Amino acid sequence: MNIVNIIEKKRDKKELTKEEIEYFISEYSSGNIPDYQAAALIMAIYLNGMNRRETADLTMAMANSGEILDLSDVSDLIIDKHSTGGVGDKITIILMPIIAALGIPVAKMSGRGLGFTGGTADKLESIPGYNVDLSIDEFKQNVKDIGISLITSSLNLAPADKKIYALRDTIGCVSSIPLIASSIMSKKIASGSNKIVIDLTCGSGAFMKNIVKAAILARTMVGIGKSVGREVRCVLTNMDEPVGYSVGNQLEIIEAVKALKGDMAKDVEEITYSLAIQIILMSGKAKDEQSAHEMVKDVIESGKALDKFRELVKKQGGDISYIDDLSKFEEPKYIVPVFPKRGGNIVKIKTEKIGRASVLLGAGRNNKDEKIDFQAGIIINKKINDIVKKDIPIAYIYTNRENSIDEAIKEIQDSYVILNIKRIKRRTVLQIIN
Amino acid sequence: MNIVNIIEKKRDKKELTKEEIEYFISEYSSGNIPDYQAAALIMAIYLNGMNRRETADLTMAMANSGEILDLSDVSDLIIDKHSTGGVGDKITIILMPIIAALGIPVAKMSGRGLGFTGGTADKLESIPGYNVDLSIDEFKQNVKDIGISLITSSLNLAPADKKIYALRDTIGCVSSIPLIASSIMSKKIASGSNKIVIDLTCGSGAFMKNIVKAAILARTMVGIGKSVGREVRCVLTNMDEPVGYSVGNQLEIIEAVKALKGDMAKDVEEITYSLAIQIILMSGKAKDEQSAHEMVKDVIESGKALDKFRELVKKQGGDISYIDDLSKFEEPKYIVPVFPKRGGNIVKIKTEKIGRASVLLGAGRNNKDEKIDFQAGIIINKKINDIVKKDIPIAYIYTNRENSIDEAIKEIQDSYVILNIKRIKRRTVLQIIN
Repeated sequence: MNIVNIIEKKRDKKELTKEEIEYFISEYSSGNIPDYQAAALIMAIYLNGMNRRETADLTMAMANSGEILDLSDVSDLIIDKHSTGGVGDKITIILMPIIAALGIPVAKMSGRGLGFTGGTADKLESIPGYNVDLSIDEFKQNVKDIGISLITSSLNLAPADKKIYALRDTIGCVSSIPLIASSIMSKKIASGSNKIVIDLTCGSGAFMKNIVKAAILARTMVGIGKSVGREVRCVLTNMDEPVGYSVGNQLEIIEAVKALKGDMAKDVEEITYSLAIQIILMSGKAKDEQSAHEMVKDVIESGKALDKFRELVKKQGGDISYIDDLSKFEEPKYIVPVFPKRGGNIVKIKTEKIGRASVLLGAGRNNKDEKIDFQAGIIINKKINDIVKKDIPIAYIYTNRENSIDEAIKEIQDSYVILNIKRIKRRTVLQIIN
Repeated sequence: MNIVNIIEKKRDKKELTKEEIEYFISEYSSGNIPDYQAAALIMAIYLNGMNRRETADLTMAMANSGEILDLSDVSDLIIDKHSTGGVGDKITIILMPIIAALGIPVAKMSGRGLGFTGGTADKLESIPGYNVDLSIDEFKQNVKDIGISLITSSLNLAPADKKIYALRDTIGCVSSIPLIASSIMSKKIASGSNKIVIDLTCGSGAFMKNIVKAAILARTMVGIGKSVGREVRCVLTNMDEPVGYSVGNQLEIIEAVKALKGDMAKDVEEITYSLAIQIILMSGKAKDEQSAHEMVKDVIESGKALDKFRELVKKQGGDISYIDDLSKFEEPKYIVPVFPKRGGNIVKIKTEKIGRASVLLGAGRNNKDEKIDFQAGIIINKKINDIVKKDIPIAYIYTNRENSIDEAIKEIQDSYVILNIKRIKRRTVLQIIN
């Protein structure tokens, strides 16, 4: 087999065989194919596409490029949830205890934040004592003991995907459906799950700006799942504004705990219920959406979901007194209101800008080695279609960095588009594809 | 300016600006843009194309990436001839003395052979004493003194083209019209010419297998010329079999000298006249093809073309006694007839295979540092539509490498397709585009 022939085939819009795809992934991973040949092939894939079979083969080749976590000794049913990213997205922290409280095992690995999006692992670490770095044996034992564990991954999962993703980023080949779909799916398959629910965000704060493309991506991932024996369901959600009313690690934990206590922002509630219902249906615990909905409502109202979260925090070394008394979370030195530049109706929030402002304040990192300030972040006081006056804050800045305040205020003010018209608000959950 | 944005533009089929193309070429040449980003851009150009303006800008950016030879002190009229390559292609050696004999200055730099195609510089070196490595000053002085000089280039002409060509070769992006056109034209422009005639070979022994694509390439090069103020004329020639009846350095010099004495193979005659006529018309020395044709015929029949070649050889240190008595060229140890595998009519000659056989025999090199055996080569005894019998040689092998004889015989036999049908023979000169 020869990489130039493989490039030429895809250049000429021909279908690659499974063997050719496996050859490319294994030889590129091991450094025998140089970046420039991989770059040419990836651009050809970007422009000429891949069919479902090729995309599924690419997914499995990337999944098989590293360790594959085997959780079959924990349960036959391994559910995973993935979000394509958003600002203020604390859904995992609310959703997973609900699922575990229903008796569905949760063994989930989450990443850390980078750039304008946060990471679940960082958020959990803002609970004093919470340890995200468990060994795989401890991870599995926790799931066996209490039905849930949330950690960060120490495994070398789908390294070929990491290498290809880094390359795609430098050659303008990020936004390709088969490449995005296989990237997401390869990691999920490597992390041992057999039922996968994906929160596919679209809108100004998401990677997918366009709902039509998002739906195609969703169908592609469902198709890959069918080809490789995994059930995949996608929930398309609107990411035209931050999720809920907080951005930043500790602030989001506080919001998540309140949500588990029943105090949920409208959008958080819609997304959480929708994802939970799909998971319940996949697990076979309910026959229809209606009864699944009731089950979710019940574990929240009965306090079982919150109890499961307390159990999780305790098991992983966290101080549950913070969960029981949220005022124990220490506030940063500066809490500063942000006033709008004009009065009117909020028609748009440039969500990426909010994410960037939170990084400025210390809530995120621009590179892997930066340290995060858990206290930093933003409270979103006004959202789309709220009417604002010049003397009512649209947001509050939380930070210990005095020097960043002015820039963050400007960034937040600029992200709010305020006009004298009302826009038609889209629902938060746009479509379910399975 | 940012290379990722440039890649994204071409990925999305948008037109690149002159500044973007210049940025890419200068930053890639200087090593600031890595190969993998260049590879992605080149694949995007391959698949999404470039319009005439972009192709002209790419040509000039590559020409300007190195030295540009200034021959304006030699003459206002600097004519260059280029061939896209063939097997047994000795046309330059016949054509250029004819042109010079007509009083049109010839200052031509030629390359060396690589792979299955030979190089004019190597062929000239097979004349004992002939020095192809003149300084630019000597080169210019010779043209001033006798109206002709044929050397090899010591200049760093269009280095960006060299770098991009090497990359294209490894990423399946050789056969792209705008990339081929800009590659050829950038070198011709860097070597100081303002009127360029291109022998665009097509057929089994050429890079362009297809006459329709060859015509598009020709029109693209003519278009680039118009955009950048150079007159370009393309002669499309049939390369379904070797040119003339010899392949190999000394053998081709012998054939060229015979041609200058009036003894020309039919195809050599057609190509030589056609290119010469176009050059004469561009120079303004004749008003129409008919009179240009007469002028060529005259300098050959009068011996002026041969005299000019003798003058050239003498001026560059060559031993003209070899030109005057071709039997002085020493023959190699082995001259072996090659018989056909069957009798019948020759319908096809796989010309690349003939080229490869000549390399096996020592006439060419597989890498830059290999040494050439000037005596080695092949005499083509039978060509397309000749009727052969099993006991009449189709070719003769000339070599000093006893070990290569059997393999070369097999390669030559395999390259001849002999059937019981007659094929319609194409003319050698297929089309003229200007």
